[in-house]
Amino acid sequence: MKPIVSIIMGSTSDLKVMEGACNHLEKLEIPFEVNALSAHRTPQQVLDFAKEAMGRGIKVIIAGAGGAAHLPGVVAALTPLPVIGVPIKASISMDGWDSMLSMIQMPPGIPVATVGMDNSTNAAILATQILGVADEAIMTKVIEYKNSLEKKIEKANADLAEIKTWRMKTN
Amino acid sequence: MKPIVSIIMGSTSDLKVMEGACNHLEKLEIPFEVNALSAHRTPQQVLDFAKEAMGRGIKVIIAGAGGAAHLPGVVAALTPLPVIGVPIKASISMDGWDSMLSMIQMPPGIPVATVGMDNSTNAAILATQILGVADEAIMTKVIEYKNSLEKKIEKANADLAEIKTWRMKTN
Amino acid sequence: MKPIVSIIMGSTSDLKVMEGACNHLEKLEIPFEVNALSAHRTPQQVLDFAKEAMGRGIKVIIAGAGGAAHLPGVVAALTPLPVIGVPIKASISMDGWDSMLSMIQMPPGIPVATVGMDNSTNAAILATQILGVADEAIMTKVIEYKNSLEKKIEKANADLAEIKTWRMKTN
Amino acid sequence: MKPIVSIIMGSTSDLKVMEGACNHLEKLEIPFEVNALSAHRTPQQVLDFAKEAMGRGIKVIIAGAGGAAHLPGVVAALTPLPVIGVPIKASISMDGWDSMLSMIQMPPGIPVATVGMDNSTNAAILATQILGVADEAIMTKVIEYKNSLEKKIEKANADLAEIKTWRMKTN
Amino acid sequence: MKPIVSIIMGSTSDLKVMEGACNHLEKLEIPFEVNALSAHRTPQQVLDFAKEAMGRGIKVIIAGAGGAAHLPGVVAALTPLPVIGVPIKASISMDGWDSMLSMIQMPPGIPVATVGMDNSTNAAILATQILGVADEAIMTKVIEYKNSLEKKIEKANADLAEIKTWRMKTN
Amino acid sequence: MKPIVSIIMGSTSDLKVMEGACNHLEKLEIPFEVNALSAHRTPQQVLDFAKEAMGRGIKVIIAGAGGAAHLPGVVAALTPLPVIGVPIKASISMDGWDSMLSMIQMPPGIPVATVGMDNSTNAAILATQILGVADEAIMTKVIEYKNSLEKKIEKANADLAEIKTWRMKTN
Amino acid sequence: MKPIVSIIMGSTSDLKVMEGACNHLEKLEIPFEVNALSAHRTPQQVLDFAKEAMGRGIKVIIAGAGGAAHLPGVVAALTPLPVIGVPIKASISMDGWDSMLSMIQMPPGIPVATVGMDNSTNAAILATQILGVADEAIMTKVIEYKNSLEKKIEKANADLAEIKTWRMKTN
Amino acid sequence: MKPIVSIIMGSTSDLKVMEGACNHLEKLEIPFEVNALSAHRTPQQVLDFAKEAMGRGIKVIIAGAGGAAHLPGVVAALTPLPVIGVPIKASISMDGWDSMLSMIQMPPGIPVATVGMDNSTNAAILATQILGVADEAIMTKVIEYKNSLEKKIEKANADLAEIKTWRMKTN
Repeated sequence: MKPIVSIIMGSTSDLKVMEGACNHLEKLEIPFEVNALSAHRTPQQVLDFAKEAMGRGIKVIIAGAGGAAHLPGVVAALTPLPVIGVPIKASISMDGWDSMLSMIQMPPGIPVATVGMDNSTNAAILATQILGVADEAIMTKVIEYKNSLEKKIEKANADLAEIKTWRMKTN
Repeated sequence: MKPIVSIIMGSTSDLKVMEGACNHLEKLEIPFEVNALSAHRTPQQVLDFAKEAMGRGIKVIIAGAGGAAHLPGVVAALTPLPVIGVPIKASISMDGWDSMLSMIQMPPGIPVATVGMDNSTNAAILATQILGVADEAIMTKVIEYKNSLEKKIEKANADLAEIKTWRMKTN
Repeated sequence: MKPIVSIIMGSTSDLKVMEGACNHLEKLEIPFEVNALSAHRTPQQVLDFAKEAMGRGIKVIIAGAGGAAHLPGVVAALTPLPVIGVPIKASISMDGWDSMLSMIQMPPGIPVATVGMDNSTNAAILATQILGVADEAIMTKVIEYKNSLEKKIEKANADLAEIKTWRMKTN
Repeated sequence: MKPIVSIIMGSTSDLKVMEGACNHLEKLEIPFEVNALSAHRTPQQVLDFAKEAMGRGIKVIIAGAGGAAHLPGVVAALTPLPVIGVPIKASISMDGWDSMLSMIQMPPGIPVATVGMDNSTNAAILATQILGVADEAIMTKVIEYKNSLEKKIEKANADLAEIKTWRMKTN
Repeated sequence: MKPIVSIIMGSTSDLKVMEGACNHLEKLEIPFEVNALSAHRTPQQVLDFAKEAMGRGIKVIIAGAGGAAHLPGVVAALTPLPVIGVPIKASISMDGWDSMLSMIQMPPGIPVATVGMDNSTNAAILATQILGVADEAIMTKVIEYKNSLEKKIEKANADLAEIKTWRMKTN
Repeated sequence: MKPIVSIIMGSTSDLKVMEGACNHLEKLEIPFEVNALSAHRTPQQVLDFAKEAMGRGIKVIIAGAGGAAHLPGVVAALTPLPVIGVPIKASISMDGWDSMLSMIQMPPGIPVATVGMDNSTNAAILATQILGVADEAIMTKVIEYKNSLEKKIEKANADLAEIKTWRMKTN
Repeated sequence: MKPIVSIIMGSTSDLKVMEGACNHLEKLEIPFEVNALSAHRTPQQVLDFAKEAMGRGIKVIIAGAGGAAHLPGVVAALTPLPVIGVPIKASISMDGWDSMLSMIQMPPGIPVATVGMDNSTNAAILATQILGVADEAIMTKVIEYKNSLEKKIEKANADLAEIKTWRMKTN
Repeated sequence: MKPIVSIIMGSTSDLKVMEGACNHLEKLEIPFEVNALSAHRTPQQVLDFAKEAMGRGIKVIIAGAGGAAHLPGVVAALTPLPVIGVPIKASISMDGWDSMLSMIQMPPGIPVATVGMDNSTNAAILATQILGVADEAIMTKVIEYKNSLEKKIEKANADLAEIKTWRMKTN
């Protein structure tokens, strides 16, 4: 199947963070592609990628980057597709503030839909919500996924109940 | 025409910031609605709004809020629609850091697509990009808008050229 | 005995922080309950919990949360009971600044009594001080607890004296 | 009537912020007193104040302070009463970060219930919620006040509707 | 004379900051050019500019930008010339932290020589120091300029002496 | 009388902040001198000043500086005298964080006794406390000054009492 | 010998940081005492300590504290002696920003001479510089200590030279 | 060969960071020297070094420092050569904010070309770009190095392709 979401990142070291997005898209069976592209080290390839993405059938782009994180913004400047940015707390960074601010604070005209620090899962969920605007089958999956979140909390609550009972006995 | 974008904000004092989003949607002739809703002062109405939005034909929600800015996150918890958050530098705030962080740092499962501080124009542009994924007519408008940005810079450049010529003469 | 303090948290992973509050309430023999509730994943349950808490005899609510920490604020919007917030330095967070700010910076009308980072013990102490306003027996326990703090420092001082003596001998 | 809430502040220059608390307590007809007391300039008076407050019938203390804001913490160390801290963005301050952190980050044992920056109204509301735990008449007032907040938003919404109609006509 | 320093900025609104650089280069009679170029709004022109700069005889590039300030980094990715970045405290910014961090925190391989906030004068001085490495005439001007700085302080000192004498008389 | 405190600052624009120190020393009749000296623009003079200060009878140095505030640290490196640093919120600064951190975070071996932002009065008071260690007459003045602080608060309290009485009448 | 420097800290857990001050004073043979005192847990003892310190012959006080670090400020309010504050990066803290700001940002009238994060050695050095103002023997030790710092760097340089020679051989 | 780049640092503990600069200069065969010099512990040597550097044939200075990082600024004040600053996240520091700000925020007149946190490789690359302005052979090496960066990303991409294929098989 042809990919409709494109995940890009600056280097393979970002993969451990961006894997969350891959996992979520796989779980919801959304076809996607993964590429390493650097705004600074392969500028021409970034340009080509961004200009051709829509033509190739891509609907949403997810871009993860750390430090002076220009990748999502540079791509957003070159495509009309919605671009989701994932700030990454890289090893040589100011505790992630640099990646968050250099993504979210884009100038009027070129938005990057920024999600939380290292939170590529949320980027993938947002991508499915965007796709769901036009595709009922995907929106159904989004709704099912959201319902499953409640289950987790109910399970957590059951666990807590046990913990409390155990504490009362041992105290 | 039935609105497909819903703009919400915590109070009318946020209107001076959120007007940027209204203006952009008007310019691109996207039908939208504007409402004041407070996650803290009208929790039941927020619940009702969020649960009914998709059924009413809304495709994208834009939520502006300042301080402990819970509105976009609370709405995102209750709808499968994509929610775009606009952090607002309110008068009683920590220079906007509170609104930015309480929007962007959502837990895994419930993303808010956060844009820059007070940058409601970018929220509206992002909304049109999301709508454009499924609607070619809107995507065409997005592309036209992006092209118009280059024009502004070319004009700026012409202005600079004049300034420099003027400086050289006067120096 | 029917609980009069209700401790809530977003997931069982917060329990290692919130245990401090449980321990203190147990020590002072204040009946309490513990529940996992997520402002984002179980919004309807949060609503029900908040609306029914006072009716069930709860006097004070303690809510721990990390990241975009909406739980205490959302609950505070739905109950007239005092709500104490414990910001938690979660793994995917901006060093705790997000949880602190999204709790403390509530809009006028809906206060959250915020205590220090990960400091659930102080939340429990504050809860007992609030209960003590009306209940002399509890206030007596609060006073006894505060007196016990001095003892710890006196012991610390004795330890320091020993350390110094030991240093002098070995130098 | 004998005051049951005591508002303290470091100097009369803090009054413009702390007036919000006075106004709210007056509106709800809670008897209160106002005093200037400085942790640094009148340490002995602070000590006497804190030690005698409960004996004089005070139930809750609200303390506003800016910069290295020690007043609420120092008082909290000397009384079993709940102490609410209002961080103030003073003229010689680090944008309020100093007052917020030197209040909220109290050591285990001595909590200060901290509210938002310059948000003395919330301090007063919290005080009434604490008093309401034991006093049904006050709790009724708290509930009435919370209901009145919804009204404001409904009014705001009506205003927005008008604005939008006006915009549509003029565009 | 053909320009050897190229000053670029995102819009004419940055000119009031970047004028400091123009003034210094004029004072030292270094030929320069000024252009408006936006990493986000005119990406293709930025690419062309950066690739052709060295061929046109430019030796040093000075780039001013605010918010998510990608301009210097994007240009640095496309030219072997040294690029000096001037972070600008733009109106919609996080007090300048965004522009500073998105410039200075470039990944290994693509440095941007970042100077202080709004300090375009220092960017121009640095440019002359870089040119002076190879050009003795320019280095002589740099040295003369540095010597002139001492004069200013000596003058300031004389002023202070007068102030103090005046104070002593009036006291 | 020969000065025993030396106040230095980077430029006359810092005088409006440093005047607080001058005023306090005048009030306590401590002989002092004022000079403009820049760690960056007059490095040799700073060196000479620092090396000769003790020989000239100076006992304490107060240094005010903004931005990358090196002056107190550079002087501290060259004299055994205690150096008090006053961070100044200069116009081109990161809200004062730069001046505070570049003063207080000196390496082990070379302390700078840093006081609060723009708080040159506290620098002067600290200087008198240091002089008072050896000089009983000065210590007496320090004690008298501290006692006078209580008076101010007592006056403030009287003012507040009046305000409250006035409010009660008018409400 | 009677102590002339008094080192205080909130608990024995701060000793690992404050030991640096002890070590330096021992090395320079300045008689000192060490005590645990908490502004919050033993307020009366802090009051007694501060009021009696000068009478007992203490000349300088060094106070280390973490979190909402009130100890040095509270002591400074009660004694005319110079008080040196050591901010400590405690386990439950906002990366040390809380302790630094709640020490340095004291109100006009009550300075705390704040040194760098966890830098108790610098506090001890500053104490000896203050004592040296009146005591030539101590000042001589200060000067000797400062000279010894240069030696360390010279040794470091020799080490670097060796490293470089080794690198050149192995490359 | 006589060194043309001089790398300085405050102590040998900074070597693990500054080694990145050494490695890059070695790889490009630029002759360089390495020295330990402390703005605070060997001020006279810093003065001599800075004044003599140009005369000895040095073209660019790279200075690494942590905490209140004065070394690059102090050297920049004493030489007309371009000075590149490398902020170092030292053990006793405020997460690197102190070193970054005390380097980048130099006053008008004395720029320090600051690169990213701990990013000494970028300092070395910038040094070669500066040298390349006048030396074609070095500029050729800079261009070759920049081209090699693209290769790394292409390799990363090939790795990612493999990972994805492997994931598809195993899922």
